[in-house]
Amino acid sequence: MDLNSDVGESFGPWPMGDDAAMFRHVTSANIACGFHAGDPSGIARTCRSAVAAGIAIGAHVGYRDLVGFGRRFIDCSETELADDVAYQIGALQALARREGAEVRYVKPHGALYNAIVHHTGHARAVIDAITSIDPSLALLALPGSAALDLAERRRLRGVREAFADRGYLPDGRLVPRGESGAVIVDAVVAAQRAVRLAAEGVIEAVDGSLIAVDVESVCLHGDTPGAVAMAESVRSGLEHAGVELRSFA
Amino acid sequence: MDLNSDVGESFGPWPMGDDAAMFRHVTSANIACGFHAGDPSGIARTCRSAVAAGIAIGAHVGYRDLVGFGRRFIDCSETELADDVAYQIGALQALARREGAEVRYVKPHGALYNAIVHHTGHARAVIDAITSIDPSLALLALPGSAALDLAERRRLRGVREAFADRGYLPDGRLVPRGESGAVIVDAVVAAQRAVRLAAEGVIEAVDGSLIAVDVESVCLHGDTPGAVAMAESVRSGLEHAGVELRSFA
Amino acid sequence: MDLNSDVGESFGPWPMGDDAAMFRHVTSANIACGFHAGDPSGIARTCRSAVAAGIAIGAHVGYRDLVGFGRRFIDCSETELADDVAYQIGALQALARREGAEVRYVKPHGALYNAIVHHTGHARAVIDAITSIDPSLALLALPGSAALDLAERRRLRGVREAFADRGYLPDGRLVPRGESGAVIVDAVVAAQRAVRLAAEGVIEAVDGSLIAVDVESVCLHGDTPGAVAMAESVRSGLEHAGVELRSFA
Amino acid sequence: MDLNSDVGESFGPWPMGDDAAMFRHVTSANIACGFHAGDPSGIARTCRSAVAAGIAIGAHVGYRDLVGFGRRFIDCSETELADDVAYQIGALQALARREGAEVRYVKPHGALYNAIVHHTGHARAVIDAITSIDPSLALLALPGSAALDLAERRRLRGVREAFADRGYLPDGRLVPRGESGAVIVDAVVAAQRAVRLAAEGVIEAVDGSLIAVDVESVCLHGDTPGAVAMAESVRSGLEHAGVELRSFA
Repeated sequence: MDLNSDVGESFGPWPMGDDAAMFRHVTSANIACGFHAGDPSGIARTCRSAVAAGIAIGAHVGYRDLVGFGRRFIDCSETELADDVAYQIGALQALARREGAEVRYVKPHGALYNAIVHHTGHARAVIDAITSIDPSLALLALPGSAALDLAERRRLRGVREAFADRGYLPDGRLVPRGESGAVIVDAVVAAQRAVRLAAEGVIEAVDGSLIAVDVESVCLHGDTPGAVAMAESVRSGLEHAGVELRSFA
Repeated sequence: MDLNSDVGESFGPWPMGDDAAMFRHVTSANIACGFHAGDPSGIARTCRSAVAAGIAIGAHVGYRDLVGFGRRFIDCSETELADDVAYQIGALQALARREGAEVRYVKPHGALYNAIVHHTGHARAVIDAITSIDPSLALLALPGSAALDLAERRRLRGVREAFADRGYLPDGRLVPRGESGAVIVDAVVAAQRAVRLAAEGVIEAVDGSLIAVDVESVCLHGDTPGAVAMAESVRSGLEHAGVELRSFA
Repeated sequence: MDLNSDVGESFGPWPMGDDAAMFRHVTSANIACGFHAGDPSGIARTCRSAVAAGIAIGAHVGYRDLVGFGRRFIDCSETELADDVAYQIGALQALARREGAEVRYVKPHGALYNAIVHHTGHARAVIDAITSIDPSLALLALPGSAALDLAERRRLRGVREAFADRGYLPDGRLVPRGESGAVIVDAVVAAQRAVRLAAEGVIEAVDGSLIAVDVESVCLHGDTPGAVAMAESVRSGLEHAGVELRSFA
Repeated sequence: MDLNSDVGESFGPWPMGDDAAMFRHVTSANIACGFHAGDPSGIARTCRSAVAAGIAIGAHVGYRDLVGFGRRFIDCSETELADDVAYQIGALQALARREGAEVRYVKPHGALYNAIVHHTGHARAVIDAITSIDPSLALLALPGSAALDLAERRRLRGVREAFADRGYLPDGRLVPRGESGAVIVDAVVAAQRAVRLAAEGVIEAVDGSLIAVDVESVCLHGDTPGAVAMAESVRSGLEHAGVELRSFA
């Protein structure tokens, strides 16, 4: 099982998250590429830390929206989006290579992550960008998303992920933020859910039913209070359960 | 002899220059990388045109200053600048590769071009960025600049350029803009100067003296009225004089 | 009748439109405020020209999207949008006052203009921003839009506008761009339509039917080839028909 | 005596400082205006808090350099700078007025603060912007700076400030950051220095000599660890010494 987390999300004078601490627990680093977060020097530092920690690097690409942190849908054209994504991947590739690493995968961020679940145009733009740059790059996304469907048809490697700290509906979708049960704050519970996910391929939904979730990676959020403790708990839980932790990449 | 020109300098809804027309005359394209000009879709289109025209692609890197078009010195740190330059080169590499081309060289733009004539810190940052990404990339810069000196010491290929449409002082420096004789507007005169430069290695200074100018490339400005006519005249003049035109890259 | 046009849309080194020429023909200037176009110095120059020409100044507010020129919907929150709009109005107020003028009205731009036709949250944000800054500011928008409805309920002055250079559907909506009859390119025809609009309150739809259009302003686009000739033709046509041209503000 | 602090320096998802806590201790709020920090919604929130706490609002204007936090000199023209400053003041005026307050003064930030100590062109640009918008606005700056000299000649109110947490050289200049004695970290010492400054008009330099410092305001940094404790200590010290704390504005 892989553990991935968003990192490199500082910008200029503004820090975000504790990348060094997260790198003690995750196996894949979704590094911001400058459009929703991340300036070149911060990205370079994060690449350096990831390499030192032996963690796989992925391009965390987003809409061009710094002030909105890429959390707001932007109704851009497919061409604009594909070129924006390619630009971001390329910038990260250069910064990663300087540290002796290669970008291994792409994970869309925020509103773009959500859009490509159903927005076929934007899903296609992301896939087009990846394919045109390097068809060996994997795409990390939500199970059942339009983007993963399309990746499969295009023979691009798609990697499905689950969330250790999010509640699930009986149909497999996430409980929307703001609703009861949307977020798991208890690190022990999150670890137990991750273990069951890895060992049995099931997760308990908010109504107590069990749902099958077939994933290669578990996402851990890095920008919340308690993120590091949560990551430590999940990693530790998985290790004690004998689950091998390594990047899918 | 190589003819280079700045292209890809449109941004969003704002066009600049006539890249397609310039591509009929130059052999090397300095493509903006998004920091002083150029958005990903515009850069991608310019790469496509350059590839179609068989023109070498260079990264036209600048300070992060869109509103000032990279023409204002920014007192950034060496680390910030090196990372900014690496980010820009990487982004262009990705967009160029999608079109089947490789970035062959780097040319600093505007205030950065002028700074690295004498600012050793910023010169070092540019050289560091290039070396760390790909030591086979050439650096296109002003003869006698600190950056070219350093490139030589670092065994990076430095390429010196002259300006067909600028006046020279007897000591080889350019006549500062705003002073008499700073700009050559007559396309025929510019062509004659380029021919003499290529054939004899000399250029006539504003006081009539001849100065030795040993360069591999001539820069043609693309964003001024008459730019295309000037480019056509210089190219045509050089061809009639039997000078072989091809990229240094 | 008022004639309004978008101006001040240059940015940094990139010019757009010919504001000085448009100011010979229009009575109201929608000046960009820096979020979709316009930098402070360009905005200041446009204010100066508008004051010299005796033209009313309005704040042309948009989504924060320079590269997309404010033409892409951004799914921002109402609070973000209201604060963004207030910020833009305030910035223009300061630049206008330095030239001895006051901002008289607000016209949303591009995707925001279209959104507030139906998006009640964004319409409310725009109205909230205007009301909180100066309830004597008018709102210039599309007849039948949610924003004008809300303006009326909030006792804010709403000003309806028609387009001299756009085709209309029989139900009063504009023919979507890209469809046949969407754009009127013949300046004489546009002038005739403007005269009929001013004199009779009707405009001919694409199917030949006449529709009642009760407006106080006619919008002339300034950023297209032929924009100035179109403006001149419409103004001249209205003057010859005895229509008094003056700002609604 | 006035106590001022930089606030409103969050941007989008990135918080900075604890404005609410600082507002329990200072009397004047230097609010970022969006060019070096501060987005419209964050600025609006800070204005609201300042009004609720009864604190005077000033425009903290800076170079247009978000990623560099306005800490890097930008060699812009006087016109660009004056228009940039006017734009920022106007934007803040609108957001402050919505909360029922007026902007009372202007304090340049970071590299601009340092530049106008000696750079007469940039000092003039700042003074020009203030004068053109509202000659009743005060300018808060460093004693002996070119900007305060010019303010006096232009009959603009200049307000001199000292730093409770910075060391001084015998000639009255600050000990450069990075040198020994540059920063006072002991909150008790800072409070004692502030009291002596207020009561006797002197401050002890790094060599133990006493220097006369005639100021109306003391600056407290808000973005450092311990900032709130420092502010509390200085305020408390001044109050116990019987110094009346109120804004100069």
